[in-house]
Amino acid sequence: MKEKGLLTVVSGFSGAGKGTLMKGLLSKYDNYALSVSMTTRAPRPGEENGREYFFITREQFEKNIADGKLIEHAQYVGNYYGTPKDYVFEQLEAGKDVLLEIEIQGALQIKKKFPEALLLFVTTKDAQTLVNRLKGRGTEEEDVIIKRLKRAAEESEGIEEYEYLIVNDDLDTCIEDMNDIIQKAKLRADRNKEFIEKIRKELKDI
Amino acid sequence: MKEKGLLTVVSGFSGAGKGTLMKGLLSKYDNYALSVSMTTRAPRPGEENGREYFFITREQFEKNIADGKLIEHAQYVGNYYGTPKDYVFEQLEAGKDVLLEIEIQGALQIKKKFPEALLLFVTTKDAQTLVNRLKGRGTEEEDVIIKRLKRAAEESEGIEEYEYLIVNDDLDTCIEDMNDIIQKAKLRADRNKEFIEKIRKELKDI
Repeated sequence: MKEKGLLTVVSGFSGAGKGTLMKGLLSKYDNYALSVSMTTRAPRPGEENGREYFFITREQFEKNIADGKLIEHAQYVGNYYGTPKDYVFEQLEAGKDVLLEIEIQGALQIKKKFPEALLLFVTTKDAQTLVNRLKGRGTEEEDVIIKRLKRAAEESEGIEEYEYLIVNDDLDTCIEDMNDIIQKAKLRADRNKEFIEKIRKELKDI
Repeated sequence: MKEKGLLTVVSGFSGAGKGTLMKGLLSKYDNYALSVSMTTRAPRPGEENGREYFFITREQFEKNIADGKLIEHAQYVGNYYGTPKDYVFEQLEAGKDVLLEIEIQGALQIKKKFPEALLLFVTTKDAQTLVNRLKGRGTEEEDVIIKRLKRAAEESEGIEEYEYLIVNDDLDTCIEDMNDIIQKAKLRADRNKEFIEKIRKELKDI
């Protein structure tokens, strides 16, 4: 019923597997496009411009803000992060469902500006699984991980604003669930007000 | 995440195929139970007690109301119609997703009392398809059909309160869509407040 794509915001606990799920969606289905954020922070080893982020200068970033070229932006540890508007809108117009990985605060900004956006929150079935996964990555010490997760709990006060929880237990099942949820979300009554008006009018005019 | 079944209310335009869709769900999947309404109207030829309706007397119906045995009830053309509470609750407790076919006014009553209930509205892709299907049944004259649909349009002012539109174009696809929507609806954040509280607490206590 909706031919435009659906703007889908993905947030979640660190270690819940957001990145892997989004990669899974992109490789398994044709109808998704990934929005790449802009940032003023320096690229880390292995990061590529246009893949992890568009790396730009502070001056360029502030010009983008002034020119209204960002859907949302925030500062974090002294650096700007933001979502380029043109790419997102072009893809939506072309019928692609745009995936946007973003923190809770940015997600709620998006929801306010675009009430039709679908907000998904990725979690594991319990906290211990998060700890185990983050330890398994081997990139951080346990006490750093624990501190990060405790902060995540505090920062998670907005979860109730999300439309769906994505419980990442079995990866393949979860990718399919996520695709089903996104595709079926297009059938929500509040995303189809025009269709409702159309058929109501047709019935009156019969 | 939710082990109790989901109360699913199905409304829709006359001729959109609610009955066929519900039969399809019940025969294709094991996890559904159909709530049968009670009524004081007389059975029509071919109707069976306990299948189309439970046919009871006015006195019995009013005693049921007084005893709080109905989830909702309404009067229509001088007869009572209502949904028995015990059956619905037993099935939900047993993990069955209970399907309830009900008019818009009753559906909105249910949503008020049980905010977790899922409200689905069945429609065709356009009004002409409804007319064609109702004519195809051959049980009513065209002018009666048209009058009925015009009234349906007026009565449809609550559609926006429904969670999803079920567009019955291809029957098999539609049954699968409907099942997906019901099963995925269990992952909605607002239906999983207990889970959110649990994992938030676990994260804080790590």
